[in-house]
Amino acid sequence: MGRDLRPLFEPRGVVVTGVSSHPGKFGFVTLHNLMACGYEGDVFAVGREAGSVLDRPVLPSIEALPDGAAELLVVCTPVSVNEEIIRTAAARGVRAVFVAAGGYSEAGPDGIQAEARLVALAEELDLVLAGPNGQGITSPPVGLCAQIVAPYPPRGRIGVASQSGNFVSAFQNYAGQTGIGLSRSVSAGNAAATSIADYLEWFADDPETDVGLCYVEGIADGRDFFERMSAVTRRMPVVVVKGGSTRGGQRAAASHTGSLASDDRVFDGMARQAGMVRAPTIEAAFDAAATFATQPLPGGDGVLVLTTAGGWGVVTADAVTSHPDLSLTALPDDLLVAVDAMLPPRWSRNNPVDLAGGETRDTIPDLLELVAAHPGIDSILQLGLGIQGNTAALTRKGPFHPDHGLERIVDYHERQERRYAEAAAEASATHSKPILVASELAVAQPENPMVTAVRESGRYCYPSADRAVAALGRMAWYAAWLRAPRLVPCLPPRPPGPIPMPGGRWS
Amino acid sequence: MGRDLRPLFEPRGVVVTGVSSHPGKFGFVTLHNLMACGYEGDVFAVGREAGSVLDRPVLPSIEALPDGAAELLVVCTPVSVNEEIIRTAAARGVRAVFVAAGGYSEAGPDGIQAEARLVALAEELDLVLAGPNGQGITSPPVGLCAQIVAPYPPRGRIGVASQSGNFVSAFQNYAGQTGIGLSRSVSAGNAAATSIADYLEWFADDPETDVGLCYVEGIADGRDFFERMSAVTRRMPVVVVKGGSTRGGQRAAASHTGSLASDDRVFDGMARQAGMVRAPTIEAAFDAAATFATQPLPGGDGVLVLTTAGGWGVVTADAVTSHPDLSLTALPDDLLVAVDAMLPPRWSRNNPVDLAGGETRDTIPDLLELVAAHPGIDSILQLGLGIQGNTAALTRKGPFHPDHGLERIVDYHERQERRYAEAAAEASATHSKPILVASELAVAQPENPMVTAVRESGRYCYPSADRAVAALGRMAWYAAWLRAPRLVPCLPPRPPGPIPMPGGRWS
Repeated sequence: MGRDLRPLFEPRGVVVTGVSSHPGKFGFVTLHNLMACGYEGDVFAVGREAGSVLDRPVLPSIEALPDGAAELLVVCTPVSVNEEIIRTAAARGVRAVFVAAGGYSEAGPDGIQAEARLVALAEELDLVLAGPNGQGITSPPVGLCAQIVAPYPPRGRIGVASQSGNFVSAFQNYAGQTGIGLSRSVSAGNAAATSIADYLEWFADDPETDVGLCYVEGIADGRDFFERMSAVTRRMPVVVVKGGSTRGGQRAAASHTGSLASDDRVFDGMARQAGMVRAPTIEAAFDAAATFATQPLPGGDGVLVLTTAGGWGVVTADAVTSHPDLSLTALPDDLLVAVDAMLPPRWSRNNPVDLAGGETRDTIPDLLELVAAHPGIDSILQLGLGIQGNTAALTRKGPFHPDHGLERIVDYHERQERRYAEAAAEASATHSKPILVASELAVAQPENPMVTAVRESGRYCYPSADRAVAALGRMAWYAAWLRAPRLVPCLPPRPPGPIPMPGGRWS
Repeated sequence: MGRDLRPLFEPRGVVVTGVSSHPGKFGFVTLHNLMACGYEGDVFAVGREAGSVLDRPVLPSIEALPDGAAELLVVCTPVSVNEEIIRTAAARGVRAVFVAAGGYSEAGPDGIQAEARLVALAEELDLVLAGPNGQGITSPPVGLCAQIVAPYPPRGRIGVASQSGNFVSAFQNYAGQTGIGLSRSVSAGNAAATSIADYLEWFADDPETDVGLCYVEGIADGRDFFERMSAVTRRMPVVVVKGGSTRGGQRAAASHTGSLASDDRVFDGMARQAGMVRAPTIEAAFDAAATFATQPLPGGDGVLVLTTAGGWGVVTADAVTSHPDLSLTALPDDLLVAVDAMLPPRWSRNNPVDLAGGETRDTIPDLLELVAAHPGIDSILQLGLGIQGNTAALTRKGPFHPDHGLERIVDYHERQERRYAEAAAEASATHSKPILVASELAVAQPENPMVTAVRESGRYCYPSADRAVAALGRMAWYAAWLRAPRLVPCLPPRPPGPIPMPGGRWS
């Protein structure tokens, strides 16, 4: 069992220090975000200016905090005053402290000492200590946005813990864009007392969280991390991005978080053995986490590609074929016969199932149900949707709409797009198989009725077939790992030699 | 010199066949798109129903077309009637034909014969013949949207030629999303008489086009393609996506465009020798083409990373360091001294130049100018912009704006974001060096003032640092190829053996 982080993510009451009337300062912004995003607990501000900020009276000191009124303290004050503030806050009932303030170990010898004192103090007072030098936390299930920056993400099932605040923001931005929300997010800052592993362990038991998503630059104790992650990944998939995999990146990491250089092959082998899903980029990591959060795990590596667009079928067949963890399923004979009965003979008669323009009103929903129900198919990629909605959009904004009888065709196209998206989500849920819908319209035309309907179904509309394949591949790898985890009891005493990297997945 | 395709892309007058009052049919949609998108020439409709469609009188037959009134014929009628239509149209002054209709070589033996007759007829009549079985063409410089589908892209400098209509649409969608427009686009269909090479050769001499972007599945004559591309790429960069690089993709290509299987290593070696810039995905291909269309070529492989966001600095340093065609420039001593004078000591003192929050009002514009002017820096990646605008957005939509003195800070943040984007474009133009701005806000928050200002500057706001690095790498590779083209006079008589693939670039 890890540390209980409930007072951090679901505090009863929050108090912020360093609040002034300057709207560009961290204390002000944190107070603003706490009050603007729907947190229902009490919020207290502490600052040196008398009066009120954002209609909230400013307490002249933490001593004025009522007993038991706040469980979380967000520290936006300078190093020199924080220990005293924390001690007083703990006496008033505070159980968790997020230190947003910098000036600690990232700032040289004096800061290192101050950080050590902070850690000792938190231990003495039995406080959860997050940060210092972090952007903050969000916890959408309780409307908590205790951050010095934007945005506030929609609620969902992904728990984010990151050694870089930038990437917390990036994942929050993607959450807002795609509708695939977050359960919790935390910028670990210098992670003086609470590490990425601590957060992930707590997420694994958190009823609000289904998947962990993390960015790490340095790991103080590799063996400890490995053992804890091996246990976490049995309960919850964890997607990881590792910064500092090259000499150039390691130099940058040393100045960013003070992380020591490490052999990327060692990390890679460790992560794989521990069942962590490594992603090469922040974008790919979100794609993967969004997939874990919204799709059932596949039962095997076989993929069927359904497409109304021949070119997408070709490049997606390439992407699946060349993926080490996926295979392009040979089209089962009974499916071939069944599809033959639904389509004119010019369809591809192969996987990808390319309709080649032969579909009518019900073909796509019927096909989705047919192939999802087939026991020989593990996962489905649905491509080419959105084209009718795109045509409708050009018509709708053109000079001939709504006259000239164009309303009916526009409505028809838009209704069909919604049906396709709904059919994909339904067939996926009914048969407990991943069905991924991909189209560049996800980013190029988010108001396309197909894209909005995918979003409303709680699914992710993948911005390209290639990115859907990569995300599905990560899921298939994890599902295979769960079935036969390559567990070893602990890391060997010395770092192992180079571990071969499978092409593509880790790079 | 290639074929003159001017009558296809800049026709004086267009006539469409197969126009009926059914708004879902190709003839109707093509007529609609021609009339809805700003084409200033005359548009004629031919169909079997008397009366008018979209307020345009429908000619009962092509015979009724006035002499010399239309140079382009768009054919949406069945195979059986098209030869006669084309002959009559040519007699009326038509110089180019786009056959959108299917039923030709993709449809079996009869279709193959019909396609051969079409080609012979076009030769006899000296017509440009595009298609058959293609989605159409767009030519924004003359407002031409002769397509059976949406969208119509904004005008720009990228010329698209594709063996898949889907990818024409995809590139058009990206153009609309990003503002990086197209000069011409054509779905080559079965490419019976006019091939991808023909289009690219014409684009290379087209004053409207700066970069070619193509998708190919099959190449009938590899040596001919190689020799022609080797000449084209001297005059214009060409980005290529190849479908059918695996057995799975080749089977799909055989049913999509009838392309024969080919050894991907042969294609890859050929493309490299010919100076073509190969991209692994449609998304990466657009990223690359948009870069060629909007950034000056770099003078060398050295990259400087400027960031206000430490995490992005780390992963981008990794991406640059591991890229075979880029290098992370060691920070020149005089730059270090100059930056020291601009920032408090906590900045990274290294490349990436991580400001670590030490910037003030003018730091970023000043820094951009400083590093762009430095002769030791070839290219710049600017990361971390948009954060202020993001914070402003949360404030702006919150309950305390516009009261509580928040207007000023919101305006300040938004103004600063615009300044940063403008400074990047200015420094790039002044010093003729690529400066790429990357942020997930490009897709997650397109209304962020940084994103809109990048767009208004005519530049591409890259959706991630990794994608910017990949695009810059393709540009650096091409720039190096131009300086020392690895030209060979022709392909060896037999296909060469496996050609080593540099890690990353082609995969």
